[in-house]
This record gives sequence, C-alpha cells and structure tokens, in this order.
Amino acid sequence: MDEFELIKKYFSPLEKLDNSVIVPNGDDAAVISLPEGKSIAFSVDTLVEGVHFLPSANPEVIGFRSAAVNLSDMAAMGAEPRHSLLSLVIPNNNEGWLRNFSMGLGECLDKYNCSLLGGNTARGPLAISLTIVGYVSGSPLTRAGAKIGDTILVSGTLGDASGALGILNKTPLDADEKFLVGRYERPIARINLSTHLLGIANSAIDISDGLLADAGHIAAASDVGIDLLASSIPISSSLSRVYTEKEALEFALNGGDDYELIYTVPQEALAEAHAMAAKVGIKLTKIGTVTEGSHVRCLSGENQDIILKTKGYKHF
Amino acid sequence: MDEFELIKKYFSPLEKLDNSVIVPNGDDAAVISLPEGKSIAFSVDTLVEGVHFLPSANPEVIGFRSAAVNLSDMAAMGAEPRHSLLSLVIPNNNEGWLRNFSMGLGECLDKYNCSLLGGNTARGPLAISLTIVGYVSGSPLTRAGAKIGDTILVSGTLGDASGALGILNKTPLDADEKFLVGRYERPIARINLSTHLLGIANSAIDISDGLLADAGHIAAASDVGIDLLASSIPISSSLSRVYTEKEALEFALNGGDDYELIYTVPQEALAEAHAMAAKVGIKLTKIGTVTEGSHVRCLSGENQDIILKTKGYKHF
Repeated sequence: MDEFELIKKYFSPLEKLDNSVIVPNGDDAAVISLPEGKSIAFSVDTLVEGVHFLPSANPEVIGFRSAAVNLSDMAAMGAEPRHSLLSLVIPNNNEGWLRNFSMGLGECLDKYNCSLLGGNTARGPLAISLTIVGYVSGSPLTRAGAKIGDTILVSGTLGDASGALGILNKTPLDADEKFLVGRYERPIARINLSTHLLGIANSAIDISDGLLADAGHIAAASDVGIDLLASSIPISSSLSRVYTEKEALEFALNGGDDYELIYTVPQEALAEAHAMAAKVGIKLTKIGTVTEGSHVRCLSGENQDIILKTKGYKHF
Repeated sequence: MDEFELIKKYFSPLEKLDNSVIVPNGDDAAVISLPEGKSIAFSVDTLVEGVHFLPSANPEVIGFRSAAVNLSDMAAMGAEPRHSLLSLVIPNNNEGWLRNFSMGLGECLDKYNCSLLGGNTARGPLAISLTIVGYVSGSPLTRAGAKIGDTILVSGTLGDASGALGILNKTPLDADEKFLVGRYERPIARINLSTHLLGIANSAIDISDGLLADAGHIAAASDVGIDLLASSIPISSSLSRVYTEKEALEFALNGGDDYELIYTVPQEALAEAHAMAAKVGIKLTKIGTVTEGSHVRCLSGENQDIILKTKGYKHF
C-alpha cells in the first residue's frame, strides 16, 4: 500500500467537511473560508519517538496525545479548533500501527469537532507533527496580558500525568493508578472552559512544561512576578494516595503532561470566572497572585520556604 | 542555549509583522485576521535527513528548500503565502548548523514575503516540517478542474534538478553544471505566475513527484486522461549539454525536484495564459492535451512509442 492509499484508508475518514471547506484533503493545499468576525489561531506541535514517548508506547495513545497536546495550545488562546494538518514521519508502512494511531487521533479530534484536512507522510524515524487551525471570537487569551493584582487560577488537578509516567506498563493497576494513567493517556484540552473565559481572564497558558516553568512564561511575557502557594495547589485524591505529599507536590510543580490551564483573572471578574467554570463543570482553584517583579516563587506551607522556578521540561 | 533562546536568536528575525498579525510568535499559538474577500490555504511538508537530503547536505540549502517545496504547494493553489510555522526536530543544539539553516530558510521566505510566525523544536533525528498559510483571492486552482480539450502547459524547464543530484558534491562545476545545481538548491515557487493564472487555468499541480506522476494526480482528481508529447517537453540547454537526450528526457519525465507547475488551460484562454506568463517573465510551454480516459501517456518523437506513467517518487 503506497502513501496515497494509506492516507485514504486511515486518515481521510478523519476529515469533516462543512461549508467553510473550499478545497478538502487531497489537493496541494487545503482551502477554507473564515466565518465573519473571527480571527484564525494556528500552532504546531511535534511528538518524537524516544523523546516524547517510548518505542513501546501504544499507538492509540500516541494518536490521542498528538492531538490533545496541540488542542491544548488552542485552549490556551481561547480558540476553537476546527482543522488540522498531519505530518507523519514513519519508519515503515505498518498497517496495524497506522490503524491504531489513526483511531486514537480520530477519537481526540472528534471530541473537539476538529477535522483532519490534509498533511503528508514521509519515511524516517517516527515523529508526529500536527498543525491545528482554530477560530477566535474577539481578543485571544495570551501570555502577555497578566496584570499586577490578578488572581492566578488553575483548572483541574496537577501532577496526575507525571505520577503516571512510572506506572504506565504496570499490571494490574488499582483504581487510583488507573486514574493517573488515564490522565496521561487521554489529556483533556480545556477548550470549552477557555472560550467561556474570553474577555474575563487577562492571560492564559497551558501547562505543558510544568507549573513553575509555564508560570514563568506568563511572568516573562507580561513583565510581572508570580507568587504561588504550595498548599493551595490542587492535588487529586488519587495522586495523594499513590505518592507521598512531597512527591505529589514535585509532580504538580514540575510535571508537564496534565495540560491543565493557568488563567490570571482580575479581582472584579473572579466571581464571573468561577461561574463560567461551574457552567462547564470544571473546577478552578486559586493558587497565587500576580505581583510586581519578574520572579516565579512558590511559598510552601508556612509561607517561609521558597521553591524557586528551577526545573520544568527543557526541550534541549 | 535552550530552546527559547535558540528560537529567539535564529528564528524570531524571520517574523514579519503586519496589521493582520494579532498575536505574533512566542505565545501558545499565532493569531491572524484575514483580509476581506480572501480565503485561506494551508499545507504542510516535511524533509527528513537521509530521505530528502543527505546528512552531508549544506544546511543553508536544506533551509531554503524546506521553504521552497512548501511554497510550491501554495503556488499550485494560486495562493499567496503569508505565514509559516516551523517544526524542527534536531539531534542537538549545533549553533553553526542552526545559523546556516535559518539563513537559507529566511532567504527563501523573504523572497516571497512570507513570515515565520511560530513553531516548535524537539530533539530527535533531523526532520523539518513547515506549515504554510496563504491567502487566495477567488477560486483556487485545484487538481480537480481539468476539462477534456484543455491544453497542458508547463512552466520553465524540466529535469534540471534531477540532473543535479549526481553532481551536488562535484568540484569544480562548469557553468552548465552550476546551473543545474542551482536549480536543485534554490527551486523557485511559481507563486507570481499562478496568482496571474487564477480564473484562466482550469487546474494546476506542482511537479514534486515527477511529471508523469503529478500529471497522474490531475488525471485522477479530474477524471480525465492526459496525453503528453515527449518532443515538446522543455529541456534546458544546460541539461542537454551535460546529459544525453535519453537521460535528459528520463529526468524530465520522472524527476521531482524542479517544482515547476503544470496548468491545464481551455483553448479560449490560451492566449491570455501566455500573455500573463510573459508579463511575469516566465515561459509556458504546451506539452500535451487533456483527453477522455484515465491514463497518462507520453508519445515519443514519432508519435509511436508510448511511455506510460510508471515511476515517480514513492513516499513509501
């Protein structure tokens, strides 16, 4: 089966056509029209075998995560994902792998009503690069909008996916471990929450490199300092049952696979932010404050020990 | 130097901001607005070390070609490229390589007024994936629009880049060989020609897999047959001086690196097509006709021997 047949069999079904698609998959480029009053967000992210996942990883999980980590970037802008392009570098034409990969990819794209509108394949060491195109209504959420005095809110719980990394291949898993592994294998992009916080939050970022590192990106882009309180960081009961308090905090501060979002919200909009979060069924937790400065610091329990931004995922 | 510093140093200068850019490079996604009356074309293409270029290849050439092969897809749609996203998988942080790669990439993007608006880097076996976003005015040129009776026109000359492959590392090169190597190292995306042929040509494709293979894509998408005449295929004087007539024809029919374009044009628009090509200083040559059927065949000199579509670059 050559590239064209392979794409047709496994990836064409992931395309969803609507009246914005002028030229679909299969031509030199896809062409779409843009609904009035919207702007376009686009981003690309890449997963490489041996770096972002092990050679033994389940292709369905790789497929799901390829989409989820990219969709999370759309969430961080307050964009609605609509279209995607896949660049797939694969060492060979392993049909079983492709079927499972495309199932996982399709499962995730489907959840967010996102279409696969094109792409290409090449032979080489396994790497998956997905470009997402989304629509934004009004002003996007950026990293650069944080204001001194803003409250820092985080969605969901942190550290779960990092807690899963050491037990991915363990069998059997108890219920708590299953929860953690699920958080790693099927991360949720907070699209719906973010589109509801457009015009309410001053800034946002998704936690892909770790809470401290990504808070640092907001601090740098917004020219502010960030004070976090360790005791307020939301830890799931599963994580706290499987690991010690110290381990769980370390995962929550420096682990990067949860794809939860940080928002900074001005005081006067806090009630509305919480109301919106309740409306979409997601818990937002206050974990800190935007201050003067350029630091990220995390005060531990007694407000005395300070954990400075130190680690976080380094791409090189 | 970490990912963020590296991107800032070598890739941020490739960004061009205009009033369509709402959120530039450096956030979770880039956000742009769309000029009224335009639609958006986007495509992605990937170059992998050892597959699309040798480990010894000049990084400046890799950078230039990474952009050119993608921009050629925009040309094939009649789109004007405007923005791009780079996904760069590199084995290590080799600053010399990155500097030269970014120079070549920037040189090509600059030629077409295309901005690098974001992307990401990851560690792994060298692979370069570029997504291009362009604007289309009116109906795009697709592969699917060819009509029976259309004349098949090709831009420039064919086979030069394939003729270069065997002499890339030869020194010294004579003038003809230099011309061929230049055609491989700095392919020209026919953007300007294609935007002038919008509304004139019925269909278009860029020749990335070889004339016969890519003519086959038009035949399949448009549900037509294609008859080509070998003796009318434009061969440069350099190619015909360096190689035998038979070798040159083989390069022209099955070589894939020239990035010239095939257009199919109805009889009544032929004069206008040639006038537009003259206006932008590019020669269009008639090489065949769109017929009934689903074949691609190429008649040799005496209209007797038939070269069927056989080869062309296979991605797997």
